Amino acid sequence: MIRAGIVVTGTEVLTGRISDKNGPWISEQLAGRGVEVAHIVIVGDRPEDLDAALRFMAAEKMDLIVTSGGLGPTADDLTAEVVARFADRPLQLDEEMLEKIAEILRGFAKRFRLDQAAVLEANRKQAMVPEGATALDPEGTAPGLVVPAGERVVIVLPGPPRELRPMWTAALAAEPVCEVLARATPLRAYTMRMFGVPESEIAKSLREIEADGVDLAAVEITTCLRRGEIEIDVRYRDEATSVADKVREGLVERHRRETFSLDSETIDQQVAVLLQGHKLGLAESCSGGLLAARITDLSGASAYMAGSVVAYANEAKAELLGVDPALIEAKGAVSPEVAEAMAIGALERFGADVAVSVTGVAGPDGGTEEKPVGYICFNARLADGTVIARDPAIPGKRADIRERSALIGMHLLRNLLSGAEPPL
Amino acid sequence: MIRAGIVVTGTEVLTGRISDKNGPWISEQLAGRGVEVAHIVIVGDRPEDLDAALRFMAAEKMDLIVTSGGLGPTADDLTAEVVARFADRPLQLDEEMLEKIAEILRGFAKRFRLDQAAVLEANRKQAMVPEGATALDPEGTAPGLVVPAGERVVIVLPGPPRELRPMWTAALAAEPVCEVLARATPLRAYTMRMFGVPESEIAKSLREIEADGVDLAAVEITTCLRRGEIEIDVRYRDEATSVADKVREGLVERHRRETFSLDSETIDQQVAVLLQGHKLGLAESCSGGLLAARITDLSGASAYMAGSVVAYANEAKAELLGVDPALIEAKGAVSPEVAEAMAIGALERFGADVAVSVTGVAGPDGGTEEKPVGYICFNARLADGTVIARDPAIPGKRADIRERSALIGMHLLRNLLSGAEPPL
Repeated sequence: MIRAGIVVTGTEVLTGRISDKNGPWISEQLAGRGVEVAHIVIVGDRPEDLDAALRFMAAEKMDLIVTSGGLGPTADDLTAEVVARFADRPLQLDEEMLEKIAEILRGFAKRFRLDQAAVLEANRKQAMVPEGATALDPEGTAPGLVVPAGERVVIVLPGPPRELRPMWTAALAAEPVCEVLARATPLRAYTMRMFGVPESEIAKSLREIEADGVDLAAVEITTCLRRGEIEIDVRYRDEATSVADKVREGLVERHRRETFSLDSETIDQQVAVLLQGHKLGLAESCSGGLLAARITDLSGASAYMAGSVVAYANEAKAELLGVDPALIEAKGAVSPEVAEAMAIGALERFGADVAVSVTGVAGPDGGTEEKPVGYICFNARLADGTVIARDPAIPGKRADIRERSALIGMHLLRNLLSGAEPPL
Repeated sequence: MIRAGIVVTGTEVLTGRISDKNGPWISEQLAGRGVEVAHIVIVGDRPEDLDAALRFMAAEKMDLIVTSGGLGPTADDLTAEVVARFADRPLQLDEEMLEKIAEILRGFAKRFRLDQAAVLEANRKQAMVPEGATALDPEGTAPGLVVPAGERVVIVLPGPPRELRPMWTAALAAEPVCEVLARATPLRAYTMRMFGVPESEIAKSLREIEADGVDLAAVEITTCLRRGEIEIDVRYRDEATSVADKVREGLVERHRRETFSLDSETIDQQVAVLLQGHKLGLAESCSGGLLAARITDLSGASAYMAGSVVAYANEAKAELLGVDPALIEAKGAVSPEVAEAMAIGALERFGADVAVSVTGVAGPDGGTEEKPVGYICFNARLADGTVIARDPAIPGKRADIRERSALIGMHLLRNLLSGAEPPL
């Protein structure tokens, strides 16, 4: 069994001011390659604490150590130096890397009208590479490192996830890392996604599948409620393939309507495919632009996204979506009738053939007995009159309710466009 | 200096399927009491890995160790057992605690129609307490523990944050913990926020401040790039107050325009205050609703937020914001002129007195030499004609550019409403 440890550096992570995204992400990547992650250690910017963490990983006989953070230009960014000492490989200036960083910084200095020489000097330490280590090209200005250290290999990556993630691929391609990973047996895995079913029901289904004679112990099943959807992750070695297949079949059979993805495809990706050739207009109130933001998150959205009217005020619903103020007066801004009028208005104003509207009580104030906080009305419709209307009560706090509103909008859009029966 | 380490247990946390909320939370609590947290270690449900983490904490001479998780009734919940062995204090059945748990479980078993005897038997292990340890009353069914272990004290808490947090107070009241905390000196702290300055410039300013004779070693300064803003966190003991003050003065003096917050207030909070008594209309293209989503994220936004037109398609810019199609044809949808027309359209259509427009090239496609990916035009204006217009080139990928667009929109709004000079 190949074991790995992850060291996340940064006082801002240790003190809880920012939450660590890198440890869990790297852990998932390693698990997918059959590497067992034993420890994630978070340390501040003190060199002696980072060194202690590295020595702990060595004492625990990790084959692979991955660090994140501490590669910036400031004095408290000390990871390269500490790892170099740990691996007993003195730091040397990598002239080629210095030139790459200089190239990146020239544009940067120009944009911010900074003294180029001063910026370059501050970033010179980022081009220091331990002897015999592999430098990984920077995504920002900080190069990563792959450093052989006796019986183990240390991968050194920068802290910002958007730099770390692309550099991870380069790290895996470095020879010392390849050699370690070649000794691990990769796990197979699939991810199913469901919407509109509680986690406890999945646990029940799994017990039933086991009672039907499927040996669940042969696979590793993780069920996780993630941003309003259930993600079921099944990992297994080659020899357990038929068990894994039976688990999938058993779950789909029991939750056909709720299962929307068998291959880890997200609802956002599915909706993007379904929207090809269509023109979408949105009308949002309580979701406050979050549904539009989700739709436009994927590149290429301009092919089908006409726009969204975020009509927070009632006058905006009237002025920009043509909702009759008398209807709002009679039924209330949060009502299936106003949701319908908003969706029809979006079809018309955007010249769209698909529209979704969302209006609800996001809270914490504004709830009534009849329409409590979390009561949300949706209307998803095609220009031909096909419609899915729902008005669920969503649990949770303001942020949850807003996010869930956008998510339900995505699922109704999928059901509307694919003709699948909605799970709620 | 009193030092502490935190051990978070749970395979679901280690593998990244759920994100750890306890480590950062405990860390913040301890920092507020002047305890320096050196390490947070995340381990899975393997007893030997938990034991290794505890031994690491002992080797690093932690005065206090706090664990979370692994106190449930199932076979893989082993924290109490491992800590008892670590502290060399055999587990003993605590009859009083068993009765308390039984009391809780009787209601539980009844509600779920479970076999009471079976449930009690499964939970019997939760009443096992290391000899000489203090048991903390459960919030769920798992009691916590305060276990003296030679020169240090181990606080053992359950994993669910809603159980851990109330039990933390009880843990602090336990005598062995009081004794450790009495030796710590609480830290003071402030957080400054800046926008529109690179991190390397802050490093340079700090070097200058030090060269001016301010003893930076007397305070702990953390600089962190967080979602496009720089967060500078300064922690210090009473006797270093004048140094901390000089650091703040020195930084403000050098970055007056870029410093928007001296007291950890966020840009969102500031904009919310500034918008009181106003009516805001937005016109978004490339930010795709993210600016509206940010504005409506805070409760109470309906007092000033009229809405946003997310005009992704050019026809939507014309139809919903009254932008002259000939202007779009002549200048391009991404141009200061169209941004201006969008903002004026938002003022009119929403009947607003403040408007911000954003139109740009989010990429990855659609860039030209003249208007590359990341080129974004902003127009922030009041009904009286006061205006701030900017068209910066934003670095990064689609997601960064979109998020940064919304952020710049927030800052321009702040500058427009407060009369402060914009940092870019």
